[in-house]
Amino acid sequence: MKVFTIEEINAIVGGKLIGSTSQQITGLDQLQNANKDQITFIGSRKFAKLWPDSKASAAIVNESLTVEAGSDRALILVKNADLAMAKLLEEFKPKAPVFEADIHPAATVHESVVLGKGCKIGAGCYVGKDVVLGDGVILYPNVSVFDDSKIGDHTVVWSGTVIRERSIIGNHCIFHNNVSIGADGFGYRPSEDGRGLVKIEHIGNVVIGNGVEIGANSCVDRAKFSSTIIGDGCKIDNLVQIAHNCILGRSCIMAGHSGLAGSVTLGDGVVIGGSASIKDHTTIHSGATVGAGSGVMGDVAAGATVLGYPATEGRNMLKQWAALRKLVKS
Amino acid sequence: MKVFTIEEINAIVGGKLIGSTSQQITGLDQLQNANKDQITFIGSRKFAKLWPDSKASAAIVNESLTVEAGSDRALILVKNADLAMAKLLEEFKPKAPVFEADIHPAATVHESVVLGKGCKIGAGCYVGKDVVLGDGVILYPNVSVFDDSKIGDHTVVWSGTVIRERSIIGNHCIFHNNVSIGADGFGYRPSEDGRGLVKIEHIGNVVIGNGVEIGANSCVDRAKFSSTIIGDGCKIDNLVQIAHNCILGRSCIMAGHSGLAGSVTLGDGVVIGGSASIKDHTTIHSGATVGAGSGVMGDVAAGATVLGYPATEGRNMLKQWAALRKLVKS
Amino acid sequence: MKVFTIEEINAIVGGKLIGSTSQQITGLDQLQNANKDQITFIGSRKFAKLWPDSKASAAIVNESLTVEAGSDRALILVKNADLAMAKLLEEFKPKAPVFEADIHPAATVHESVVLGKGCKIGAGCYVGKDVVLGDGVILYPNVSVFDDSKIGDHTVVWSGTVIRERSIIGNHCIFHNNVSIGADGFGYRPSEDGRGLVKIEHIGNVVIGNGVEIGANSCVDRAKFSSTIIGDGCKIDNLVQIAHNCILGRSCIMAGHSGLAGSVTLGDGVVIGGSASIKDHTTIHSGATVGAGSGVMGDVAAGATVLGYPATEGRNMLKQWAALRKLVKS
Repeated sequence: MKVFTIEEINAIVGGKLIGSTSQQITGLDQLQNANKDQITFIGSRKFAKLWPDSKASAAIVNESLTVEAGSDRALILVKNADLAMAKLLEEFKPKAPVFEADIHPAATVHESVVLGKGCKIGAGCYVGKDVVLGDGVILYPNVSVFDDSKIGDHTVVWSGTVIRERSIIGNHCIFHNNVSIGADGFGYRPSEDGRGLVKIEHIGNVVIGNGVEIGANSCVDRAKFSSTIIGDGCKIDNLVQIAHNCILGRSCIMAGHSGLAGSVTLGDGVVIGGSASIKDHTTIHSGATVGAGSGVMGDVAAGATVLGYPATEGRNMLKQWAALRKLVKS
Repeated sequence: MKVFTIEEINAIVGGKLIGSTSQQITGLDQLQNANKDQITFIGSRKFAKLWPDSKASAAIVNESLTVEAGSDRALILVKNADLAMAKLLEEFKPKAPVFEADIHPAATVHESVVLGKGCKIGAGCYVGKDVVLGDGVILYPNVSVFDDSKIGDHTVVWSGTVIRERSIIGNHCIFHNNVSIGADGFGYRPSEDGRGLVKIEHIGNVVIGNGVEIGANSCVDRAKFSSTIIGDGCKIDNLVQIAHNCILGRSCIMAGHSGLAGSVTLGDGVVIGGSASIKDHTTIHSGATVGAGSGVMGDVAAGATVLGYPATEGRNMLKQWAALRKLVKS
Repeated sequence: MKVFTIEEINAIVGGKLIGSTSQQITGLDQLQNANKDQITFIGSRKFAKLWPDSKASAAIVNESLTVEAGSDRALILVKNADLAMAKLLEEFKPKAPVFEADIHPAATVHESVVLGKGCKIGAGCYVGKDVVLGDGVILYPNVSVFDDSKIGDHTVVWSGTVIRERSIIGNHCIFHNNVSIGADGFGYRPSEDGRGLVKIEHIGNVVIGNGVEIGANSCVDRAKFSSTIIGDGCKIDNLVQIAHNCILGRSCIMAGHSGLAGSVTLGDGVVIGGSASIKDHTTIHSGATVGAGSGVMGDVAAGATVLGYPATEGRNMLKQWAALRKLVKS
């Protein structure tokens, strides 16, 4: 357990200390739940009012708010309490799971694999022929990486994730549990007798940039030819589907259960809400936002917000919903 | 294969035996599919009419229905045929898969792990530092459990499931295949140069009560701080997403493909239909029902039923849909 | 890397060669991305116009289009460029991952398992009691197959996939990564004290026909009794849910994130769009199409197309959407 004095915490977040407390701080929690040994956060007037009744000995406060510290309690004034909280979470972060050996004897690593400095490979991992792992790559137990894949420096892959052959993964990525990278795309053609379906081979691969995070049980399919591409800094939540030949720009966000059908293109900084889905061969231009639950059936302009099913410009959709409600009331 | 006489089955379900059959009963199936050596179920008049043409030698019948047994056929009258069927399914349940050794030699179990009586750990499992397993815990092959997690008595974890560090799991839970418990929540902040996203560390954990069942390929993320909590007796279907800091009360039901965004609170006995999704920071109060496919954007009152996207009080939504259909007809 | 002359490629696709090129062809890509050593495809006038500016040395062209080859460039005229592309993808398909040993020493295979000729079982696989594997079955590393299951000839199972006890799988199937076959269905009854839920045992199994492909992280639950059945030639995308006791006919297609609740029946050749979901006990008759994102709440007639939520006959739903848009404009 990590322990900080209030002065040490103030040094971390670079704020202005008001009041004082002798309490050692061992963690953080929200206002209603925090205990005496925890620090909390006050980002709005609503929460400022709850401060006198909180058990927390200290709080980080947006400097625009007026709060009094109280007895043996301390406040740290900062520009942005959320940002300060993010910094503190980094400090309080517990240690990562232990590796008893760098390459666990119960891992199966092909003799041709190229290992960077400080790689760690857990029990039950499989690493195939001619895979290249950069410096500091961590494969937690029971990860499978197939032939000719390349994983960049300091990328972390959690248990159950499978990276199929010829995938190219950047540096500083995080793949959570049970992710599937590089399975075949979903494509068939009618059989010649017209009575069935014949698989279209998918001979492309998946290329993932730097700093990409992919949530648990999400899927990125390999391209039919060429590559399915995820740009630097994209953040993908759990249970997300990215089909063959999709191309994502930089720093896109896809929330849980959202999905892209085949050959969808996202510009930079596109935000896809939870459970939204995008038709195949559609382009969502840079800076656009797709609301949660939307079904997008056509291209979306840069910076636009769309909503609903079928997805429409956001304010228009809100008006459509209002009009529908009004039909019932009248 | 288990074999029962009709008298033995009647003793199990505690009904009233009408007619008789010398047929040994080896299983059960629905009326249209059942064979001579199977027992079936008649819970409505519609099915009662089909009884003469069924091949089944016996049926369990709701006592409110009028059915005649026929020659060498038997009926068992009960208050509730569905309930009796559930009892019989328990009797006909085949044996669970064989464990040749309690702790398989191809499992990797850290020396610090505390094992209850009668634990079974399959081949390819990984159990990390300071994990505590209660009595009768079963980890089927290729399960991964990380450091400092605790799994309660008689909990069963199926292959491919990953339980991340510091998770606390109750007694008598069942986790199906490829479940992801305790992956990081989905939270980022803009980088200081405004050109990217910085990961917010998630230092909390997941706490799961007793008697919780979680379906295949579902995800429960760890909390940003404090805990993501699933109350006693909750039943979660396949491919469900439960984000960081959600709190579920007792005996909630979430059907397939449903999802909760961050910090959603469910009261007790909440029912979430399939493919429904709930906005972050929303509260669904006890006894409320969210219809399948709904998109919930605000709090739902205790006992209420909501439906649609955006979700609205159920009958009102049905009227909206009717009004929309009428616009086209007129 | 495979290398073909343009004449060799023409022999494969059986077209009419126009122009000529000395360039060796090593791969294929779409018109805008193809390089000098790649062949591309022209299936419409739009793409025909882009041909002069493409770097590709050769293209396969629908014979209905008028295109000129140009200098040191070749065209192959065919009836259907898409079909020809599918043939070429088969030719350019890279080798599957290497198996150093047929049965890897780090696999756990029960002594009772029956292995066909030429089976391959990767590291970390678990194969339980009395499993029967046909000829040429491939289990990639970290697959789990439980007791009494049967897998037909030449079926390929990718890493992370779990096949639970008593599953029956046909020939020539492909299961991608982290698929869950045969987990318990989702069924509960109220406890006798009315305060909780009691699990209904699921003692049935899963039966999958020949030529079935199942995408990454998809789930097929076992039946309550009898079998959940997937007919020959069905193609299931990623993250799809097929609940207990569903019955799919031949050659059905289910796109990503789609789901069937319990006891849904699909006829032959049914197409379910992405993210669509189908209510329990519903029948979708042969040849019907369910549009992407739809929520189907009742039976669908053979050959019909339904759309929307709640799903309605397709053209009617388009009119409803148009009427709603008009309400706002007027």
